[in-house]
Amino acid sequence: MTPILTVFKWSPDGGKGMARDMRVRWALEEVGQPYEVRFVTFKQMKEPEHRARQPFGQIPAYEEDGLQLFESGAIIHHIAQTHPGLLPDDRAARARAVTWMFAAVATVEPPIVEREQADFTDPGQPWHHEARFAFLDGQIRTRLRDLSAFLGDRDWLDGQFSAADLMMVLVLRRADAALVAEFPNLAAYIARAEARPAYQRAYAAQHVLYSGAPPDEW
Amino acid sequence: MTPILTVFKWSPDGGKGMARDMRVRWALEEVGQPYEVRFVTFKQMKEPEHRARQPFGQIPAYEEDGLQLFESGAIIHHIAQTHPGLLPDDRAARARAVTWMFAAVATVEPPIVEREQADFTDPGQPWHHEARFAFLDGQIRTRLRDLSAFLGDRDWLDGQFSAADLMMVLVLRRADAALVAEFPNLAAYIARAEARPAYQRAYAAQHVLYSGAPPDEW
Repeated sequence: MTPILTVFKWSPDGGKGMARDMRVRWALEEVGQPYEVRFVTFKQMKEPEHRARQPFGQIPAYEEDGLQLFESGAIIHHIAQTHPGLLPDDRAARARAVTWMFAAVATVEPPIVEREQADFTDPGQPWHHEARFAFLDGQIRTRLRDLSAFLGDRDWLDGQFSAADLMMVLVLRRADAALVAEFPNLAAYIARAEARPAYQRAYAAQHVLYSGAPPDEW
Repeated sequence: MTPILTVFKWSPDGGKGMARDMRVRWALEEVGQPYEVRFVTFKQMKEPEHRARQPFGQIPAYEEDGLQLFESGAIIHHIAQTHPGLLPDDRAARARAVTWMFAAVATVEPPIVEREQADFTDPGQPWHHEARFAFLDGQIRTRLRDLSAFLGDRDWLDGQFSAADLMMVLVLRRADAALVAEFPNLAAYIARAEARPAYQRAYAAQHVLYSGAPPDEW
């Protein structure tokens, strides 16, 4: 069975690769696995049919031969178990790559998402204050500084390109580009990943869906 | 080689099981793997010797036969690969358990940690406001409601107890107990996990270290 990926009918990012199905699309492109997509509107995302696939009412969700998965990190981990090319075969190298997959979503992403959400949630609220944005930027900068120091002049986090880089690069792309630009090796790391043909195919597949005018209902 | 777990010399939670090495201690107790501990002060945590183990200057870090890992989710995933009892053998059930491990740290934990940190960071800041705490509680409640609806009357997230429950329960324990109590099946889920002998051994091992007066330097 061709895997089915459930994605936004339309994404408010206008097709800039931010919707998290991009992670799974890129992984599937890296391993050469074709897939189908199912679309959900924001309303449908919160309804029982979709929650049976994704209990938190989010995207992406993934189905394959009766197996239902969610969480981009877990979906990609599963794809890497069944296809070569996303995680190294060596046991130790594989464990280190999984470490960086978790680090991407559990350590680097939260302050980036908190900052992103503040732009939407804070205006009009009694706690809205420019100083909070500067504080949040500082929290992101701390993570970027540590990551930049670790990366140094390596091409990828641990030897060869892996699912760890895929996850980390898409997390970094959510951050303010001006913040990332303070760390030239991180900006170069993102550019290196974006140059991969699999990335470009995944990006184009998402971009064509979301870059036009939004549909009547999304 | 006996694994070495790097942990706080002293934890500001006073030994209530909140420091994240608790996750790894519990996993090691579940599989019956003895371990040694190395202590770091908050100052040592940010120094090069520790950053070589944990690039973000956090705990826990884990070493085993020359393999260096960090991120509690990844460490536990590694332990589950080499010991029976933490992840199911069935391929599909295992993939679902990994899904919930990622959901614990990437979807449920971030709003809980954001709320916890606000208690420390917001007082004295120009954006300090009670309404923000209520807003953050609402974000946690959304996640708890979805998780509670999924769990229903199951004992564990997917059939048998697994590393997914271990991760999720320790994430839920960080939330305000009054918020969790709004969802009786989640409170019962936590209590069910805490009753496990392996949990109790791990808790006791951490509690004895941190429940007394803090050392001169920590």
